[in-house]
Amino acid sequence: MRLTASTAIVGIVGTPIMQVKSPTVMNAWFDQQGRDAALVPIDLAPEAIAAFLPVLRGWRNLRGMIVTVPYKQVLAPLCDRLTRRAERLGTVNVIRRDPDGTLVGEILDGAGFITAAAAHGFDPRGRRAAVIGAGGVASAIADALCEAGLTELALQDVDAAKQARLAETLRTAFPRVAVREGIVDLADLDLLVNGTPVGMNGDPSLPLAAALLVGLPAGCLVADVVTAPLETPFLRQAQASGCRVQTGIEMTEAQMLQLAGWMGVGEAPA
Amino acid sequence: MRLTASTAIVGIVGTPIMQVKSPTVMNAWFDQQGRDAALVPIDLAPEAIAAFLPVLRGWRNLRGMIVTVPYKQVLAPLCDRLTRRAERLGTVNVIRRDPDGTLVGEILDGAGFITAAAAHGFDPRGRRAAVIGAGGVASAIADALCEAGLTELALQDVDAAKQARLAETLRTAFPRVAVREGIVDLADLDLLVNGTPVGMNGDPSLPLAAALLVGLPAGCLVADVVTAPLETPFLRQAQASGCRVQTGIEMTEAQMLQLAGWMGVGEAPA
Repeated sequence: MRLTASTAIVGIVGTPIMQVKSPTVMNAWFDQQGRDAALVPIDLAPEAIAAFLPVLRGWRNLRGMIVTVPYKQVLAPLCDRLTRRAERLGTVNVIRRDPDGTLVGEILDGAGFITAAAAHGFDPRGRRAAVIGAGGVASAIADALCEAGLTELALQDVDAAKQARLAETLRTAFPRVAVREGIVDLADLDLLVNGTPVGMNGDPSLPLAAALLVGLPAGCLVADVVTAPLETPFLRQAQASGCRVQTGIEMTEAQMLQLAGWMGVGEAPA
Repeated sequence: MRLTASTAIVGIVGTPIMQVKSPTVMNAWFDQQGRDAALVPIDLAPEAIAAFLPVLRGWRNLRGMIVTVPYKQVLAPLCDRLTRRAERLGTVNVIRRDPDGTLVGEILDGAGFITAAAAHGFDPRGRRAAVIGAGGVASAIADALCEAGLTELALQDVDAAKQARLAETLRTAFPRVAVREGIVDLADLDLLVNGTPVGMNGDPSLPLAAALLVGLPAGCLVADVVTAPLETPFLRQAQASGCRVQTGIEMTEAQMLQLAGWMGVGEAPA
């Protein structure tokens, strides 16, 4: 890759940042696409967060910032504008810097998920889905599925209050979707998503009775947001039950296109 | 080059930044040296300067920042510590971020110049030099020459007050050096430096009578800080008088090594 004074800069902010793969993946992708853009890692201490957004407003060759742990909730209220989804969920995973310095917060995890699922032939309209988790990524996926025309959604999180809050938010925003709390029956599901980090280190336990997975219908798409290992114990189990599976990397790659398009450093996906 | 989450980040801040060559040159150099480091251009609006240093303090994977026009004077008093030279001249062209977040300001233009001149066999001890200009770069070079053992220094700037201030600063810091104001005779000079941007666009006029150059002794080293064109009208004229010449790029390259060493992203020069 090249990095010169005319390169469009995108940052990724979080702490720690060492383990994050996005710079490697995205810079290789910029390179391959012949884009004069670079993703720069910023490991930022919490005490610098207050000064961070004023600097982003004045950073003229910056196109935007990917936001990762632990700043997704912290930075949302500090943006100048939020998209409706980011506002509803109180979370951002990307901030775009418009040419006048305005910072617009958005959460693209859901859009990336929908695109990746479409590649498996999954269209949310009229379907039934279950999402495990009610944190940042899980709620973005649940929200995007509801918006895309899902009929029924079941939610489950180990934190009952968090689960109830997300269910309430989604019911208010999408009154036509039947949002249920608790995943008790998988027999008629079209989509099952693990939206939690569980499985990241090969840990097989999920906040869902393992026995349930046996009941998955063969036509069901089973997706994980975990990117390492590529094939989590959850996905292996689903595959053994005859289901199609979608990895976390598929969502990440789809989202990379979305955010490059959204920030104007790559073509928007078709 | 590679740019990943473990790459050591160095920034260069100024506005505008588009025309600056350092990212191209330095990133190619990091690459060639096999250093996992990147120089990132930051075109920063003046209104973001107040928030900038707090962000640098908290930017954990940042090794330092090169400072360019118009922030060399502005940022000096905002650093946590200044080297004696940076404090004396009220100017920084590099800020190092120590692991605890302390920001140390330094001006390395002079050291780069001395190293480049040494490659031409020039040793300041016991020599006579004249420096044209009393701005940031010129004063750093004049200061470094005095510190390195010069006997006599003649200074000239179109701004008489600026010229007097620099002369006074140098007389106070280096009482053993005879600092004169005004360059009137070149006949016994060992070194003549253009420390102004004049000549940058092929502009031949210098704040020095062109006729004087005719009187340069053949053994004199003539140096320019201008980097584009590589060979300025000033250097061409000196060469025609039989003098050895030193280009602005030679100083820039020597300084690149100095600052990489100083920030710990490359080996310090021998």
